[in-house]
Amino acid sequence: MTVATSARATEAVRRCRLLAACSEAPGVTTRTFLSPPMRDVHAHVTQWMQAAGMAVSIDHAGNIRGVYAGATAGARRFFIGSHLDTVPGAGAFDGVLGVMLGIALVESLDGRRLPFAIEVVGFSEEEGVRFGVPFIGSRALAGTLDRDILERRDAQGRTVADAIRAYGLDPSRIPEAAVDGHAVGYLEFHIEQGPVLESRKLPLGVVSRIAGQTRVTLTFTGTAGHAGTTPMHMRRDALAGAAEWIAAVERTASQVPDLVATVGRIETEPNAANVIAGKCVVSLDVRHWNNSPRARAAGEAVTLARDIAARRGLRLDYEIRLDAPAFAMDTVLTALLERALSDGGVSALRVVSGAGHDAMIVGLRMPAAILFLRSLGGLSHHPDEAVDEGDVAGALAVGVRFLDLLAAEPS
Amino acid sequence: MTVATSARATEAVRRCRLLAACSEAPGVTTRTFLSPPMRDVHAHVTQWMQAAGMAVSIDHAGNIRGVYAGATAGARRFFIGSHLDTVPGAGAFDGVLGVMLGIALVESLDGRRLPFAIEVVGFSEEEGVRFGVPFIGSRALAGTLDRDILERRDAQGRTVADAIRAYGLDPSRIPEAAVDGHAVGYLEFHIEQGPVLESRKLPLGVVSRIAGQTRVTLTFTGTAGHAGTTPMHMRRDALAGAAEWIAAVERTASQVPDLVATVGRIETEPNAANVIAGKCVVSLDVRHWNNSPRARAAGEAVTLARDIAARRGLRLDYEIRLDAPAFAMDTVLTALLERALSDGGVSALRVVSGAGHDAMIVGLRMPAAILFLRSLGGLSHHPDEAVDEGDVAGALAVGVRFLDLLAAEPS
Repeated sequence: MTVATSARATEAVRRCRLLAACSEAPGVTTRTFLSPPMRDVHAHVTQWMQAAGMAVSIDHAGNIRGVYAGATAGARRFFIGSHLDTVPGAGAFDGVLGVMLGIALVESLDGRRLPFAIEVVGFSEEEGVRFGVPFIGSRALAGTLDRDILERRDAQGRTVADAIRAYGLDPSRIPEAAVDGHAVGYLEFHIEQGPVLESRKLPLGVVSRIAGQTRVTLTFTGTAGHAGTTPMHMRRDALAGAAEWIAAVERTASQVPDLVATVGRIETEPNAANVIAGKCVVSLDVRHWNNSPRARAAGEAVTLARDIAARRGLRLDYEIRLDAPAFAMDTVLTALLERALSDGGVSALRVVSGAGHDAMIVGLRMPAAILFLRSLGGLSHHPDEAVDEGDVAGALAVGVRFLDLLAAEPS
Repeated sequence: MTVATSARATEAVRRCRLLAACSEAPGVTTRTFLSPPMRDVHAHVTQWMQAAGMAVSIDHAGNIRGVYAGATAGARRFFIGSHLDTVPGAGAFDGVLGVMLGIALVESLDGRRLPFAIEVVGFSEEEGVRFGVPFIGSRALAGTLDRDILERRDAQGRTVADAIRAYGLDPSRIPEAAVDGHAVGYLEFHIEQGPVLESRKLPLGVVSRIAGQTRVTLTFTGTAGHAGTTPMHMRRDALAGAAEWIAAVERTASQVPDLVATVGRIETEPNAANVIAGKCVVSLDVRHWNNSPRARAAGEAVTLARDIAARRGLRLDYEIRLDAPAFAMDTVLTALLERALSDGGVSALRVVSGAGHDAMIVGLRMPAAILFLRSLGGLSHHPDEAVDEGDVAGALAVGVRFLDLLAAEPS
């Protein structure tokens, strides 16, 4: 690791922490799609991009884009990006670190030109917080943003189109944000947001696939009743039924390798200590790198719920809210990334991303790869989210090596 | 059943429904301690009591009290009562029916005087909704109202004392509401609020005991985490732990005769579909007519929670919120009530009340008995709460017979 790389990593981390102060809420980091603090973020990022020799613009989906020219005028572009929006009460690194590393990578070139231009993109929206729909930024770049999305409303009743206009942009010009067909590819640096790399004592991981995801909302309906006057055998307790199901889902999911199944949300009515629950709504989130075990597990969980409900005299309703297939990262770019890692003497662990990322949206239009950085304590979506500066320096070194390998490729 | 009794039962039901319209909220019945609609209730009740020949007053705890004089000037008093406050979104009969039947009983005497006076009491507060503490009315009558309670605050920050003053009463004069030592006894008519009588096809039940009650709040604390990126075996899922416990509590409670154990409340943090729950707070309500099985079951539930938490690497905290012993109704009055039933040709089922009632507070100062009326569909604390008019007429006939039997007693 060179001293310059270490210094750039330190600076990238400093910049992440500085941007974490751009927030809608005091004392925490909350930055949703094109909310006012995004202006400060764009001001900072513009300055850093320009200092690194990039031409900066903001497209009409609110993505900030810095282009570092290639060796020749008509050179194709290689994209490096991640998102600049956050969840409520976020940490400093989810998304933001990928953009800061993109800028650091360009800085690392020190004015050196490659056979391709580099475009660093800070996507406007990935988390789906404000409008309940994720990936607005990367969908615009990929040219897959459904126009219906523009009419979705936030909690204040403002549409996506309103938010874009309020930011001084023009929603009718979003199609101009889409890439043409000549992109070289896309690289995303992202924190792992999980404990696997840390548990293996590895700083970095190459993402082979992004897990598919099924989301189901299930409603158990029984009969509310007095906790003191209704004998156990005469109850139709919706919460007890849901609890039996949650425990069973966890048990069965644990038996399927690489499967994760989560019940994270539960709402009970009337939710009083002395009243038997008449209704219980629960969420189910199932993910796997392979589509068939995921579909099977989701189906089995619903069957299980139906059986439990039937046995207890409860009604079961369910709604499939999301059914997204697994996404395979580009094998050529991913192999190149692994070579960059092994050239640097870092053992290349292939990992599956359990979380969705902009790379799977951009990856519909061009080859895409993701490099994961270890999440300290596996923590993310939390103010204590953290990265090791040595890991960041390592990722930066891998990135430089990756660009050099890519530049040396025949294509 | 006489025609007059049937007509009085019909009228008692009509009055309950009329009072259900006295509410803090439009379209539903919600009437908490000394809230404005209680003035309308008091106006109606005063009129009915006076028409029945009672002298009416409102004590400084807000109880309305109608005295029907006995045969002699210094006659001891027999009390008949229940409460006039309601839960939010209540039915028309919980509490109110007991007061209406008290008035109907006095009307049934048609001016006839008994060796004892009758005082019908409409308690101001039993449900504990506004201040989180139940039985304010009956505690004042029993002389057991802790003065600390006067300083408890409602959601708007007003104290019990403020509420009493706002109603035009004087909290410092609450001690005057207490009965002297010469009461004959107390009878409460109340809907069962459960399904047992209906399931046995019986209109009425004599309460032998009021179940003791233990309430515990348990908190499972794990680690919040990303639903996609945290492998099943690395999770410390607070909701999954709580769910396993809820299912186990239900299973073990069902094996103990007459025990009821309820988890009615559950709160999970952050309660998002894609986040593993870091914290889960659940309520436990355990009741039994006998104290030792209840204490044993509550203790076992906590041990179970501790074991589950330990095995899952969760932290368990718990707090015992209530530990109220079972209450035995007066054997002499209860036997008299059973005789009144069998005299009327109704088979006398002894039942345990799983719910607390004013009778267990008043019963600390004088012999007390409760007659349950069948709840249609076992429903209570619900707008559809209902009684059969034939059952109400039956209860009224039993009440008249009971008073006659009591009048014939040597004491």
